[in-house]
Amino acid sequence: MRTHYCGLVDETLIGRTVTLCGWADVARNLGGVCFIDLRDHEGIVQIVAEPDNPAYAVAAEVGYEDCLRVTGTVRARHSVNDRLRSGRVEVVAETIEVLNKAAPLPFHAHENPGEEIRLKYRYLDLRRPEMQRMMRTRIRLVQALRRWLDARGFQDIETPILTKATPEGARDFLVPARLHPGEFYALPQSPQLFKQILMVAGFDRYYQIARCFRDEALRADRQLEFTQLDMEFAWVSERDVQDTVETMIREVFREVIGVQLEDPFPRMTYAEAMRRFGSDKPDLRIDLELVDVAEQVKGCGFKVFADWADHVDGRVAALRAPGGASFSRKQIDECAAHVAKFGAKGLAWIRVDDLAKGREGINSPIAKFLDDATLSALLAATGARSGDLLFFGAGPYKVVCDFMGALRLKLGADLGRVEHAWRPLWVTDFPMFEWDEEQARYVALHHPFTAPAVDDIAELKANARTAVSRGYDMVLNGNEIGGGSIRIHRPDMQSAVFDLLGIGAEEAEAKFGFLLDALRYGAPPHGGIAFGIDRIAALMAGTDSIRDVIAFPKTTTAQCPMTGAPSPIPDEQLAELHIRPVPKG
Amino acid sequence: MRTHYCGLVDETLIGRTVTLCGWADVARNLGGVCFIDLRDHEGIVQIVAEPDNPAYAVAAEVGYEDCLRVTGTVRARHSVNDRLRSGRVEVVAETIEVLNKAAPLPFHAHENPGEEIRLKYRYLDLRRPEMQRMMRTRIRLVQALRRWLDARGFQDIETPILTKATPEGARDFLVPARLHPGEFYALPQSPQLFKQILMVAGFDRYYQIARCFRDEALRADRQLEFTQLDMEFAWVSERDVQDTVETMIREVFREVIGVQLEDPFPRMTYAEAMRRFGSDKPDLRIDLELVDVAEQVKGCGFKVFADWADHVDGRVAALRAPGGASFSRKQIDECAAHVAKFGAKGLAWIRVDDLAKGREGINSPIAKFLDDATLSALLAATGARSGDLLFFGAGPYKVVCDFMGALRLKLGADLGRVEHAWRPLWVTDFPMFEWDEEQARYVALHHPFTAPAVDDIAELKANARTAVSRGYDMVLNGNEIGGGSIRIHRPDMQSAVFDLLGIGAEEAEAKFGFLLDALRYGAPPHGGIAFGIDRIAALMAGTDSIRDVIAFPKTTTAQCPMTGAPSPIPDEQLAELHIRPVPKG
Repeated sequence: MRTHYCGLVDETLIGRTVTLCGWADVARNLGGVCFIDLRDHEGIVQIVAEPDNPAYAVAAEVGYEDCLRVTGTVRARHSVNDRLRSGRVEVVAETIEVLNKAAPLPFHAHENPGEEIRLKYRYLDLRRPEMQRMMRTRIRLVQALRRWLDARGFQDIETPILTKATPEGARDFLVPARLHPGEFYALPQSPQLFKQILMVAGFDRYYQIARCFRDEALRADRQLEFTQLDMEFAWVSERDVQDTVETMIREVFREVIGVQLEDPFPRMTYAEAMRRFGSDKPDLRIDLELVDVAEQVKGCGFKVFADWADHVDGRVAALRAPGGASFSRKQIDECAAHVAKFGAKGLAWIRVDDLAKGREGINSPIAKFLDDATLSALLAATGARSGDLLFFGAGPYKVVCDFMGALRLKLGADLGRVEHAWRPLWVTDFPMFEWDEEQARYVALHHPFTAPAVDDIAELKANARTAVSRGYDMVLNGNEIGGGSIRIHRPDMQSAVFDLLGIGAEEAEAKFGFLLDALRYGAPPHGGIAFGIDRIAALMAGTDSIRDVIAFPKTTTAQCPMTGAPSPIPDEQLAELHIRPVPKG
Repeated sequence: MRTHYCGLVDETLIGRTVTLCGWADVARNLGGVCFIDLRDHEGIVQIVAEPDNPAYAVAAEVGYEDCLRVTGTVRARHSVNDRLRSGRVEVVAETIEVLNKAAPLPFHAHENPGEEIRLKYRYLDLRRPEMQRMMRTRIRLVQALRRWLDARGFQDIETPILTKATPEGARDFLVPARLHPGEFYALPQSPQLFKQILMVAGFDRYYQIARCFRDEALRADRQLEFTQLDMEFAWVSERDVQDTVETMIREVFREVIGVQLEDPFPRMTYAEAMRRFGSDKPDLRIDLELVDVAEQVKGCGFKVFADWADHVDGRVAALRAPGGASFSRKQIDECAAHVAKFGAKGLAWIRVDDLAKGREGINSPIAKFLDDATLSALLAATGARSGDLLFFGAGPYKVVCDFMGALRLKLGADLGRVEHAWRPLWVTDFPMFEWDEEQARYVALHHPFTAPAVDDIAELKANARTAVSRGYDMVLNGNEIGGGSIRIHRPDMQSAVFDLLGIGAEEAEAKFGFLLDALRYGAPPHGGIAFGIDRIAALMAGTDSIRDVIAFPKTTTAQCPMTGAPSPIPDEQLAELHIRPVPKG
């Protein structure tokens, strides 16, 4: 239907007759001549319909987004547009055919009319050049990853979408089984067990760009379904996996967006990341660090500090906001409100107006509780300078990390201290278990199939609280973009870990019997990792929202405004599936 | 953990020390020396443990499928095994480490213990070299397709798995929406509407290796979930699509299995395929063809023939089985039973023992009803020779095609007349609609979005019964491996087709409103195709069952013997989803 793409018509074609297909981006009549910007996925070219030509009558009636086919001759353009590849030429129309007339648009292709409307008319939204650019970034990312993996003998194997409910933390989506009344398939939260089984099955190196499903509350960066690059390796240790995928990520960033990431990535233990940044996914672009001040406030007059400084599981940490003395009271209140969302009971602060003036030079609601020695010690420990604002958090270790880590990110943004850079790192040596107060039992920090650092079952059981796992996360600019581990490959160790997690032998057999079986038949040592494709694509495309790199995302209320999913289903159809809806209320 | 792969150790490594990981394929003790065949995904190498070495004690205890790490020196082998790449060398073990001991196996890796057991212990089944070979064929197929498409600017875009119920013929799988009581997502039967929307959205050329879902009765070649290569092109006619994908399939067959398919593929209309082969997916490897004999039997004494020969929608067809005169009565009865499964009310036959002897030389239950002229005409029309068996079918046109087409396939196999070859073709000019007697309405032969050959709505409505669509199928050796069409891109035509299909304006708006909307905003002419990856992989791998090229398939009862899916779910969990199970019975 066409000889060339609109966006690629250039000076090499001057004098040639071309046939182009595209949408009317802009049509206007200037001095009796019709100009149409004709747009396809490659870009725009200017069409000219002159009054002495039959095409003029058609051109005069063209509206926004009409679908056209134009045949004409390429000629040099008087007013050059250097921002377009086609900006030095135009096409003098001989015929213009309206292939499909467009109704008046709900919004123009260059506008951004808000998320609900964008998703309802997603086909118009996606036509916007900015959306085309972001979607293409994702497409090129996936292509580059596949090419890299294929060239290295990784085998792309599909695992089932209709599978068994095996809770991995989040809620499963369920699918009633028509042939088996009262039974349900579940959509996979990840292909975790299948990829381990594939290693037992001798596939050696596996990958899959896999769709995963979690029926969770939707936040801005979550979708019901998401895509991960899932990988697994047989006969490996953690460094084999890490070195391989680090190289892959580095090469893919260079190829897709021309960015050279550090080589090698810095490495940090979980303990260090929590201590310095209050997060297991530290954003290293921000140069602020938490400082432990328990030693300095032990026995001080501010009871909250003194108590938590003495508590075995407590933490008292400070964060210096350079130049923060200029913060208004409102800004400080905003900081307090922010950390409250992350579990803080309060946020103490000291404004350092003039360090030389001692106690006179500071302003703080808590200063009156602190003697001179404590105050000096705190100023020294934090490296405070005149003009700074110091924040302090005290409480249970994990809670203080969470809210001070969140404060660090906020201050980084508010103070303009986020470096324009790409800062990847590995975080390693995660705790094997977390104690869940509500359930009064251990839960797995990664998942129940992660190997502990120790090989000895008795040793693991004796030191479960402090046990370290063989898990690792790849973090980029404060995002966990990949997470993985060496897996347990011995059935006795897997049973012991289930046991520590409060999963009894019977429950383990019912839920994970096939995994335990598989481990009994010569399972090789293995490990792997999974990368969040939506997030990496969003980072590469320079957008905060993964919805910009998903063709048809759901809203935060888990709906698709375009198709109207989800939707009611007739009772007869549900009866075939042996279910009935529960009336509301 | 290893320096080399087992299967790749060869003479270039003689004298070198290697470390290998793998499974003990066979272990045996011959004359006081231990031999272990160590196997990984690349193949097998022989390990030798000599009695003067500490590795001997370990080797003596090794059992089938134990997971080992072996370090040793490569040396030339006395008894060469030319079938193995490693067959001229062996590795003299210095250390053998048992990484994971295997329990006694339910079956040996070289056996095929039947489907149920194979699927229950899929990880052992997949270790068999034959399964590894077949799975690798699939992996290479998908890789080759992607590489071809990526190189040509096709854009790989993911479409949702959780979407809206929009019946396309088969039953939908449904997923209760937790946030929307009484509402359900559906799993897609194909990304059909999404890929059309992507064309409206300006993506120009799309592909996806897409998971699709149909809640249908399972036959040997069907799965609940299956994989298709889904493609769509904007601004194209059918030949653009066909020529592109024909080239792709030809190049991929050459690359993956070294087969050169015809260039170009033969083309055949639906009408011709039904007439000559009784099928819209004719297996051209079989040289038998149906012959219409209505003219010959008009007014003859065999009433069934005479009646159907006069019927406007009737067919009387013959099929010559060369050399079939040697069939026993039992074999003929089997043929009759076979066609009965495809709707035949009976199967007439004439055995031609000796053509020269006229009526004396034939044997047939219907001969007595046929006068000499009719008999001669039938023998002439079918090209009968001495030693042949002639079969005849009479009835409604479509029914006769179905059962005589099925008989043709059976005779092809029984008579050994299936050429060892690859015979692709295009089938085109399908009817737009089929009349459904039960529902007393038209149904779409492809799907409701397929464009008719005529552009004029009034003309389509006036001739709906005989209207031809712009659909096309790619057929290979009797399998429909791909099916596609040019789509309707004008909203008025789409509404007219919905109308002809008995889908009222309100229902159309409710189910397909977003498609009609999209067509209103400048939808370009577009078309595409989808290929069945499971089937093509099975053909390439030389297996009849697609389950051999799916890592974790379901049984014909829609279950997974390994994981136990589907499975019961606690009522509390269902209550969260606002559904309750309907008690059995």
